[in-house]
Amino acid sequence: MASAVLEQISTNKHYEGQLTKYKFKSAALGGLVAQFNLFLPANAAQGKVPILVYLSGLTCTEDNGAQKGGFMRDAAAQGIALLFPDTSPRGAGIEGEDVDWDFGSGAGFYLNATNPKYSTHYNMLTHVTEELPQVIEAAGIPIDFKRQSIFGHSMGGHGALTLYLSSLSKSKQYRSASAFSPICNPMKAPWGEKAFTGYLKGGIEEARERYDATELIARTKEPVHILIDYGTGDNFLYQLHPDSFLKAARDAGHDEVQVRVRSQEGYDHSYYFISTFAADHIHFHANFLKA
Amino acid sequence: MASAVLEQISTNKHYEGQLTKYKFKSAALGGLVAQFNLFLPANAAQGKVPILVYLSGLTCTEDNGAQKGGFMRDAAAQGIALLFPDTSPRGAGIEGEDVDWDFGSGAGFYLNATNPKYSTHYNMLTHVTEELPQVIEAAGIPIDFKRQSIFGHSMGGHGALTLYLSSLSKSKQYRSASAFSPICNPMKAPWGEKAFTGYLKGGIEEARERYDATELIARTKEPVHILIDYGTGDNFLYQLHPDSFLKAARDAGHDEVQVRVRSQEGYDHSYYFISTFAADHIHFHANFLKA
Repeated sequence: MASAVLEQISTNKHYEGQLTKYKFKSAALGGLVAQFNLFLPANAAQGKVPILVYLSGLTCTEDNGAQKGGFMRDAAAQGIALLFPDTSPRGAGIEGEDVDWDFGSGAGFYLNATNPKYSTHYNMLTHVTEELPQVIEAAGIPIDFKRQSIFGHSMGGHGALTLYLSSLSKSKQYRSASAFSPICNPMKAPWGEKAFTGYLKGGIEEARERYDATELIARTKEPVHILIDYGTGDNFLYQLHPDSFLKAARDAGHDEVQVRVRSQEGYDHSYYFISTFAADHIHFHANFLKA
Repeated sequence: MASAVLEQISTNKHYEGQLTKYKFKSAALGGLVAQFNLFLPANAAQGKVPILVYLSGLTCTEDNGAQKGGFMRDAAAQGIALLFPDTSPRGAGIEGEDVDWDFGSGAGFYLNATNPKYSTHYNMLTHVTEELPQVIEAAGIPIDFKRQSIFGHSMGGHGALTLYLSSLSKSKQYRSASAFSPICNPMKAPWGEKAFTGYLKGGIEEARERYDATELIARTKEPVHILIDYGTGDNFLYQLHPDSFLKAARDAGHDEVQVRVRSQEGYDHSYYFISTFAADHIHFHANFLKA
């Protein structure tokens, strides 16, 4: 796949580093224009820096995490780059993709669609894991993709956990994963059921193999580095099933050093919750990215 | 003025405290519904806390500072409440108020209008300095308005400086003021000229007396506590005149302990700039609020 040319949309100095919004013609997304934000800490001027990928939740774009997450202060201090992809292809023109807020545009679920209706465009898995690193490297941006970790929120928490766990037995692309209020067992949640039956030819059973974090952790033998926070005041808690994930992890032999699931009293599903624990997550990943 | 009843729109736990959005029928704004956000740190459960008022810039609402400012982390740690008013009355129905982004809705300029066309509704000065403290106190929210400071961005920086300086010879309502890229000399800036000739019967000359920070600091004999940051990459720098303010302050005998104006290399006018220096400003005000 020939790397696309990155075009800069805007750039803002931020915590002595630089936050830049790019766009490019995405092969993974069927030739549509894709946008992302990339924060480069100041120390990138002295050489390649590690990178932490943030996957946002339903209805979000590449901007929500960058503007409201509160991640950059500690990332800048730790010398870690942050990549904010979009949450779906945009403008595919597929009938119905803009009807619901929890399916289609803004709801790509970080998978590769196999239903022919979506499979040309809805390939956020390849976009995030292969294409973005490729175009960023090709542009000569000083990032060391061998030091990469991933985190996310809600649907993006699902994405972070599944992309991390899937890579363990293969490329080991990510050193650690963390999530704020992730959809931990999407096979058993309305959001996930809708996404999987829509995007995947094999529906829920296809998802069980590749896209359900609780199923994946149950089959994972390798040691893992996972941190999850969720709020007890989260109106969407019935979609998340953190307890199922935790039980599957413990049953598979992953102890509290490998998998930490923290229940945060009174917090909800919003970016006010995320930013409260942003520093914790950055420092968690820094342990592995700077090792 | 009888105090209006506060109605809670939403509330989110944030850094162990609580961010709550309220609305009420505002007498100062001619009976229109006004909204604001209020962050209460956790220590408010043990007694009244000091408060810092944040005034936002053109086109903003009560949400921009709360969502993107990055203020709450340090405010929570310091035990300081944060008040985020809106930037203008909403829905006054005055002909033309929604035509331009820099006048009318979203652009109240923190003054009391004297032009009869606007004077029933455009009274953000009274709204911020009198009405909001009154309705918050009347609701029994544990804030000590004797320990109050003020800051803001752009038009809100103008508001913070002018409300602070105006109060010095009278109520001494605010202990300190700070601003990100404030409009320091609005009489001589297109934004200010438009606002003053529109809202004020006496136009620019009326503004000179009450609403121009550079004019006010030149006449201020009392010691002051002011911190200003602006970016050298700010596209709106021609609207701001920080040098005029600084010169007027020094000429009036205010030294670098009383008035600090910092030029920040490469930063622009955005919230990415604001959040970068958010912690500095919170700690600046904490010096006075916790004294």
